[in-house]
Amino acid sequence: MNVAEDHPATATPAPGEAGLVEPRDFVSAEPFTFESGQTLPGFALRYETYGRLNAAGDNAVLICHALSGDHHCAGRHSPADKKPGWWNNLIGPGKAVDTDKFFVLCANVPGGCQGSTGPSSPDPATGRPYGIAFPFVTIRDMVRAQKRWLDALGVKRLFALLGGSMGGMQALQFGIEYPGFCARLLPMASTARESAQAIAFNEVGRQAIMQDPAWNGGNYPKDGGPRVGLAIARMMAHITYVSDASMDRKFGRKKKDGATGDAYTFDVQFEVESYLKHQGESFINRFDANSYLYITRAIDHFDLEAAYGSLEQAFTRVEAETLVLGFTSDWLFPPGQSRAIAQALLRAGKRASYAELDTDLGHDSFLLESPQLYELVRGFLA
Amino acid sequence: MNVAEDHPATATPAPGEAGLVEPRDFVSAEPFTFESGQTLPGFALRYETYGRLNAAGDNAVLICHALSGDHHCAGRHSPADKKPGWWNNLIGPGKAVDTDKFFVLCANVPGGCQGSTGPSSPDPATGRPYGIAFPFVTIRDMVRAQKRWLDALGVKRLFALLGGSMGGMQALQFGIEYPGFCARLLPMASTARESAQAIAFNEVGRQAIMQDPAWNGGNYPKDGGPRVGLAIARMMAHITYVSDASMDRKFGRKKKDGATGDAYTFDVQFEVESYLKHQGESFINRFDANSYLYITRAIDHFDLEAAYGSLEQAFTRVEAETLVLGFTSDWLFPPGQSRAIAQALLRAGKRASYAELDTDLGHDSFLLESPQLYELVRGFLA
Repeated sequence: MNVAEDHPATATPAPGEAGLVEPRDFVSAEPFTFESGQTLPGFALRYETYGRLNAAGDNAVLICHALSGDHHCAGRHSPADKKPGWWNNLIGPGKAVDTDKFFVLCANVPGGCQGSTGPSSPDPATGRPYGIAFPFVTIRDMVRAQKRWLDALGVKRLFALLGGSMGGMQALQFGIEYPGFCARLLPMASTARESAQAIAFNEVGRQAIMQDPAWNGGNYPKDGGPRVGLAIARMMAHITYVSDASMDRKFGRKKKDGATGDAYTFDVQFEVESYLKHQGESFINRFDANSYLYITRAIDHFDLEAAYGSLEQAFTRVEAETLVLGFTSDWLFPPGQSRAIAQALLRAGKRASYAELDTDLGHDSFLLESPQLYELVRGFLA
Repeated sequence: MNVAEDHPATATPAPGEAGLVEPRDFVSAEPFTFESGQTLPGFALRYETYGRLNAAGDNAVLICHALSGDHHCAGRHSPADKKPGWWNNLIGPGKAVDTDKFFVLCANVPGGCQGSTGPSSPDPATGRPYGIAFPFVTIRDMVRAQKRWLDALGVKRLFALLGGSMGGMQALQFGIEYPGFCARLLPMASTARESAQAIAFNEVGRQAIMQDPAWNGGNYPKDGGPRVGLAIARMMAHITYVSDASMDRKFGRKKKDGATGDAYTFDVQFEVESYLKHQGESFINRFDANSYLYITRAIDHFDLEAAYGSLEQAFTRVEAETLVLGFTSDWLFPPGQSRAIAQALLRAGKRASYAELDTDLGHDSFLLESPQLYELVRGFLA
């Protein structure tokens, strides 16, 4: 998400923007049983929509967000809003996901911290945040909760579902869980199962959080908590979202404030250090540490092979047409993992294709300006 | 260093081992001025030697260690010693660095914490550890301090100098600083300047340490200090020492204790998590957090291009013959950075060659069993 944060932003919605949007809340008062067997009496999902559902009800496009994303994927919340939604370059009137044609929806996942029910929500039993008493969340739980919301909105069928990284995992799980519901799946920079290295990075982040004394077993006040641990987790994770080449191009070995020579101090000296520090600091002001634990665990546990016996077996129920996108410089979820998804879909007899985009921007490539990406998305939705 | 720690070890020195060794201390009572301008009244270096200096005094081979290494690179300290020195597979009688032929030496770097003077040494002025009042250390300082030690030992010339990672940086700096002193340089898995990504990883580790409240501005008792932060730093760094492929082969998505299915807990579940945790925990019992700060800073600041104007310019004084080794799967100091060293040496008119070893073990490849590596080293020293 974070690279997008750096993009220059203007104070007034630019032409082609989804315009002013207002988040809304879907509240389900029916019990929801998680895969873990734990149950909540109900839940809320915060969401946004752009464009209009047509009379036939067949133009809905669902966007699923990644680890640190949320429901605000396009437009602005007020004219003074300096930053548009995180996928504003892709979604809007006349854009690749054209809000003049499509009814676009996006919800914050359960377990999240941007308005949907999650570990920072008050537990009705105690009045205090759930903390780690919140039920464990899986990718399948995220998908099932969103389906309930879409049903309530009267969305009968999705024209398409797009998501990058964890959003791509949700896309695949949606296609498996509700085969007739979604006509087109577009998972990007994603994987059907993380490698040991990706689990390892997530685990270091979780340890940084849980070993921060302020984590306190998951019980902390809303404005407190393991800010140091969360910032460390984010700084490290950020390195995995970009590429060596892009960091080198952007920062190289440049010193802060144009300093030359060696400053003999442990303070920030290189620009890349200052940039990372900023990434950590801005993250702790918008993200909940327990949500970070829950969502990384959901990502680590996602394993379609283990869940269904094999990837082909997982995909037997899929009816959607799928376009899987990989990015050459993505070393967190390397393109081979995206290619393997498309190959398994084809072996399972499904309509699937794979495209690899040659970028040097790393895992976050799917979030960044890319005419090539826009063209592929536009073509797939045509 | 750490992958080597996992190697099976026997209680009795195996045939071909350098045998029992005893660390010794070189103490210099002459003032030493660091590159930063800061001065110590003197310093100690802990070192080990294997084999004997011949009558002509021309068979000395210096080994320079990496970030978390030390002077104990071969043999054992007692018959009960379970683990030999960190490069025991390379150094010993009949081995690639043959202690029947060569007088092999290795010293813990200044700034280190294994017996050489560093931030955990007592400051004579206060009786307490220096902490971050210790002078800043650069790769050049490490080299100059070792030269003083070698002079005191009566080593007139080095037959060869071998080092991996930060050890390779020292090799290059030695060749520049004391051109006539060293006949052969063999830097492996090294770089003449780190990329932004490598600096970034080091910085996250330093932040994990310095933001641990127990760091306390660098003032902590010998058995205390930022153990949590240091363990986090080590866990993260360890991921960068190995490769995605090797982690996947060793751990994949295997659950701990053969567990199947998902355990809905934030405790360690995957084997890779348990392994990393062990890496962190064993490291904090042998390494000083302030040394970690000093040595990573030394590595980050090493930049032969910036120091000499260009890499060719840096190498103009080199007289040694150089063999630079890169490893295909090293993504921390990618092989292209080693190749660039050899190319610059050649452009500067020096005798240099480059060999790339095809391994999938990552940066730590230079520490691991490799007949191909042994052959290259043996050939270069022949």
